[in-house]
Amino acid sequence: MQLNVCSSQQHSLPLPEEESSNNMASKILLSLALFAAACSSIALASDPSPLQDFCVADKENPVKVNGFVCKDPMHVNANDFFASGLQTPGDIKKDVGSAVTTVNVDNLPGLNTLGISMVRIDFVPQGINPPHTHPRATEILTLLEGTLLVGFVSSNQDGNRLFSKVLYKGDVFVFPEGMVHFQHNVGYENAVAIAALSSQNAGVITIANTVFGSKPDIPIDILAKAFRTHAHIIAAIQAKF
Amino acid sequence: MQLNVCSSQQHSLPLPEEESSNNMASKILLSLALFAAACSSIALASDPSPLQDFCVADKENPVKVNGFVCKDPMHVNANDFFASGLQTPGDIKKDVGSAVTTVNVDNLPGLNTLGISMVRIDFVPQGINPPHTHPRATEILTLLEGTLLVGFVSSNQDGNRLFSKVLYKGDVFVFPEGMVHFQHNVGYENAVAIAALSSQNAGVITIANTVFGSKPDIPIDILAKAFRTHAHIIAAIQAKF
Amino acid sequence: MQLNVCSSQQHSLPLPEEESSNNMASKILLSLALFAAACSSIALASDPSPLQDFCVADKENPVKVNGFVCKDPMHVNANDFFASGLQTPGDIKKDVGSAVTTVNVDNLPGLNTLGISMVRIDFVPQGINPPHTHPRATEILTLLEGTLLVGFVSSNQDGNRLFSKVLYKGDVFVFPEGMVHFQHNVGYENAVAIAALSSQNAGVITIANTVFGSKPDIPIDILAKAFRTHAHIIAAIQAKF
Amino acid sequence: MQLNVCSSQQHSLPLPEEESSNNMASKILLSLALFAAACSSIALASDPSPLQDFCVADKENPVKVNGFVCKDPMHVNANDFFASGLQTPGDIKKDVGSAVTTVNVDNLPGLNTLGISMVRIDFVPQGINPPHTHPRATEILTLLEGTLLVGFVSSNQDGNRLFSKVLYKGDVFVFPEGMVHFQHNVGYENAVAIAALSSQNAGVITIANTVFGSKPDIPIDILAKAFRTHAHIIAAIQAKF
Amino acid sequence: MQLNVCSSQQHSLPLPEEESSNNMASKILLSLALFAAACSSIALASDPSPLQDFCVADKENPVKVNGFVCKDPMHVNANDFFASGLQTPGDIKKDVGSAVTTVNVDNLPGLNTLGISMVRIDFVPQGINPPHTHPRATEILTLLEGTLLVGFVSSNQDGNRLFSKVLYKGDVFVFPEGMVHFQHNVGYENAVAIAALSSQNAGVITIANTVFGSKPDIPIDILAKAFRTHAHIIAAIQAKF
Amino acid sequence: MQLNVCSSQQHSLPLPEEESSNNMASKILLSLALFAAACSSIALASDPSPLQDFCVADKENPVKVNGFVCKDPMHVNANDFFASGLQTPGDIKKDVGSAVTTVNVDNLPGLNTLGISMVRIDFVPQGINPPHTHPRATEILTLLEGTLLVGFVSSNQDGNRLFSKVLYKGDVFVFPEGMVHFQHNVGYENAVAIAALSSQNAGVITIANTVFGSKPDIPIDILAKAFRTHAHIIAAIQAKF
Repeated sequence: MQLNVCSSQQHSLPLPEEESSNNMASKILLSLALFAAACSSIALASDPSPLQDFCVADKENPVKVNGFVCKDPMHVNANDFFASGLQTPGDIKKDVGSAVTTVNVDNLPGLNTLGISMVRIDFVPQGINPPHTHPRATEILTLLEGTLLVGFVSSNQDGNRLFSKVLYKGDVFVFPEGMVHFQHNVGYENAVAIAALSSQNAGVITIANTVFGSKPDIPIDILAKAFRTHAHIIAAIQAKF
Repeated sequence: MQLNVCSSQQHSLPLPEEESSNNMASKILLSLALFAAACSSIALASDPSPLQDFCVADKENPVKVNGFVCKDPMHVNANDFFASGLQTPGDIKKDVGSAVTTVNVDNLPGLNTLGISMVRIDFVPQGINPPHTHPRATEILTLLEGTLLVGFVSSNQDGNRLFSKVLYKGDVFVFPEGMVHFQHNVGYENAVAIAALSSQNAGVITIANTVFGSKPDIPIDILAKAFRTHAHIIAAIQAKF
Repeated sequence: MQLNVCSSQQHSLPLPEEESSNNMASKILLSLALFAAACSSIALASDPSPLQDFCVADKENPVKVNGFVCKDPMHVNANDFFASGLQTPGDIKKDVGSAVTTVNVDNLPGLNTLGISMVRIDFVPQGINPPHTHPRATEILTLLEGTLLVGFVSSNQDGNRLFSKVLYKGDVFVFPEGMVHFQHNVGYENAVAIAALSSQNAGVITIANTVFGSKPDIPIDILAKAFRTHAHIIAAIQAKF
Repeated sequence: MQLNVCSSQQHSLPLPEEESSNNMASKILLSLALFAAACSSIALASDPSPLQDFCVADKENPVKVNGFVCKDPMHVNANDFFASGLQTPGDIKKDVGSAVTTVNVDNLPGLNTLGISMVRIDFVPQGINPPHTHPRATEILTLLEGTLLVGFVSSNQDGNRLFSKVLYKGDVFVFPEGMVHFQHNVGYENAVAIAALSSQNAGVITIANTVFGSKPDIPIDILAKAFRTHAHIIAAIQAKF
Repeated sequence: MQLNVCSSQQHSLPLPEEESSNNMASKILLSLALFAAACSSIALASDPSPLQDFCVADKENPVKVNGFVCKDPMHVNANDFFASGLQTPGDIKKDVGSAVTTVNVDNLPGLNTLGISMVRIDFVPQGINPPHTHPRATEILTLLEGTLLVGFVSSNQDGNRLFSKVLYKGDVFVFPEGMVHFQHNVGYENAVAIAALSSQNAGVITIANTVFGSKPDIPIDILAKAFRTHAHIIAAIQAKF
Repeated sequence: MQLNVCSSQQHSLPLPEEESSNNMASKILLSLALFAAACSSIALASDPSPLQDFCVADKENPVKVNGFVCKDPMHVNANDFFASGLQTPGDIKKDVGSAVTTVNVDNLPGLNTLGISMVRIDFVPQGINPPHTHPRATEILTLLEGTLLVGFVSSNQDGNRLFSKVLYKGDVFVFPEGMVHFQHNVGYENAVAIAALSSQNAGVITIANTVFGSKPDIPIDILAKAFRTHAHIIAAIQAKF
């Protein structure tokens, strides 16, 4: 099964060569998927410009650069610009009730140097895509199915204003680069969204996991002071991550 | 009806305040739409970075800048980051059998400075989104319904290679910035795609319309020599645009 | 007194014309300041390039653009490139024990289009600059006085690893763009740091204030699920912000 | 002979070490060249910024990146910033009557990371540089000899307006990034132009060759529908490319 | 006469509407010009990207921004992308023996947002384009007539190495962004070069004029110490500027 | 001793692993340092954006790219984002009376791709940081101790205006990207400044050293004409560098 968990990680699609059996499965699953899926999406901004038609990521190359080194262009073919897997919902993560399936430079190597990526987000009823930021991208989201409360909070200078809206099928919303945002399925059915992000590798920083679940932990006294609460409450939350 | 034609123009979504009746209509139309719609999409790359949380486009301001001047941030609210209208297919353009419905800075003013936009593309069977380029963006496309032949041609230096692929539901393909590309519904049902572009205003240059339908026309002898054909054939094509 | 609170807001320096008396005060305060001050700093990345020698922000102009419109260059003088006020600690914010004093395009208008800004951060013993991100900049910090535990957490894809270090006088640390980071005075004396950020207006998103203190609040059930805790605990934390 | 064909390809200048005999030839040819040459030019926009004084392209390195990896700076000398060959017209391509001689990162490796390149374009009387785009650059052109009709067509959103002008010696024209443009020698003598492009590797997409001469061909039915003509006319044009 | 001095200033071309008489003059002067002219050129790098097909500079608009605000696109025509005047040498500046004629956003308003500009440089025998930098661009230069010694000096970190070369007709050289560079006519005839710069407004900083001729002067003791010479020598040099 | 000379070179901090003995020394030196140190700093603008959380420079890798290739992220730890050494003044260079100690990507590898760096500048009384430019960055400076005359000169187009100001403790000044600028300790005590630059590797071009001390020398006749003085005066100045 290639279904993926979401929210606390960006999950990879199966690579094209691994997908034939998934495709058979996915044809069966698809009619269900569009009604039963559930997840939430993200997006961010402004990669360096390309200096040739394409620079397909050579993921196995031991040389690491900003982004990825390129495959020999003579060996590039159409499959390098292709990925499959958005036809089915990701594997719903129990604690949040959502799944994010990501298509970025990690599983679509042709995206390298091109400044964009895409995700599918599935939500069960009451599922959330918890508050998170994308450090390198703006996100634009459209809702395919369901009813979704979405929102972002502006920065300190703007007074941490919450801009939120309930979305219905076909609605579009934008989450500006770097802002904390979330989605919540407020309907009675599953919700499905497609979102795009303005980077080949937008990054996801899920606030709760990052602040309470880092490896190692951020010292409790720092968090207690930051969140204006008791150390034992911080410790209890940390224990969940 | 807010259905839009596609391919030779980017069409605007109805603005939010005009959409209440459309929403009623769209709930009825949607179950049809996801099976009967037909169109193709586009997307491109690398706008300047934002210098504040948001700079919502003030479209009515007489001062014109690269992009748009900003609304007073105190008057900005959630509706500035919102658009509706992707739930229904655009108005199919007869000659090509497709419709592009665009959500960019023109109808979603919150996208200003944020480097991304989105389109829905609908295709009837055999419908095409004819060869075109986006001068300012890469496009990433996912197919929601149907079967689509997609392709792009690399530049002269790379030998004008055609990279093409047949897409099924849930497949994703990327069209690198500035490359000529197209989509063709090769299935027996309508096709629907969602695409995102790496600019708030990617631009569309439909090759045929631009080369044979410019206002005024490009001189016939230039086109006859460029396309290695007779002047009367050029004139006949020009007469269709 | 121009001393400023820190952490949950970026505070303005007094403008140059207001500073003569402050300067008198600051000469007296300075020997104390360098030993007794207390606060923490931030910084972030990659504004659009300038198209002329300078474009000094005209803050009063009713036309708003990405960044600011420019003063007539004929009226520009050296004071437009100048600000004062970093000689004294900001006004320590009681709950966190720190103060951030910011010099960015808001109080140094010559920074417009130039992609950089600076802050002074003061900390009392045990003071913290609570976890926060800068949506538009990398930060580089050097410690002038005291002992500071600093750290940042990488994104989900990297496993939310905590990179932390105790800094002493003269040490330098970098917080990559968009990453959640914090500082904590672990010494017995005040600490003072100078940091620079790679944007004229980096922005600050203090996590706790943004997530628990937005206006209006993010719905409690979303936060309870995100932080894996009870609604009453969320409500209690929200009540503090 | 190092004369080059133009329009459907960007041709390389001979590398410096191959040029001694060419230089001898070119001294003889030059007085002819400035009167008898004929060709057309191109130009484009906004490469990533350099992070050191220079990063001379190491073309032979097996590692491929966005642009090129750098030679060891200790081995760099003045010849790395030098190319010759613009003193003579390129090899006129019979079908279009023009030749483009390109100096970009391929034959002037010092241009790597520096965001600019140059071309010489020669035209015989009635010669054209057929409609083309540069996917990654704006072009600025100045006419050294002859009389040239130049033009570009704006994108769909602007109504595909043709902006054209007849240029005489010393005139300058700009073709904005990504726009379809062309040049036509409308005088009785050869024409010579120098143009610069805002990328180290602007790319050229000659419309006719790309749309009708890709390898493999774009399916005939797509082109017939796009150009609103019969399949046999498309096939006849394809056969010429 | 529209001939311009060079080196210590970038000079404007006559605007198009002023050029009809110049064109008559220039037809007479041109055969002379290509053999008798003499000057040197400059060029620089990486403006923000455009967000629409074009944003023609509205030079008279009282609102000033990074670059220029745009004319109403409906009033834009081909003349906005056009300038004339490079057919004739600029007005040779006696002290240096050269003239720079510049085509940038100041006299070709269509260049706004497009990241490129062009200059013609004329030199009498022994004429120089004195050491200067372009703060915002790389320069690529081709020699049309004459024999030119060109060079640039790398930065301190690279050891202030001089990279120099004698250029002949048709040779091309690149001066990396921000590096100090110069040209010297070492032949017995006039020299003429065309250069392009990677910015719409590259800027010129002629070292001698900037360091010894600023308004007001840099204090003598600073310069004496910097140049390791006596104050009276500095004063004597300052008196010449 | 890790004290560094300044002005004509950017000097490296000792790497962290070499610093234990320096740290012992520096604790002794520090109380002196803050009163006795003397030097001046600089900084400049707009590197390409990061495409991952961090790309720590792998300085030993034989593959050279724009910036540096990255260490394997699994081997990255907090020390990669850390440098020490700004607690002590650099080694005062006798001829100018100042020292620049630089923290950039060369000695803080975590800065790679992040667009910022920092320097400490120390000045003895009457010490100067001689006129110089940063080809790739804007600089923002704050004065920690002493009294400093600072200034920059605008480009030719702006009339080479000098913008200068006397700074006192806590004052901040900005030197726009690419402009010639300087600092002069006009007080009776040492001066200490911290500055930041908007690039990981801003570069320094000290005017006198570059123009009169390049390797090899710029020909005397070019400089004599450029500086409007006699060849023997040029030769005498060159002999000092």
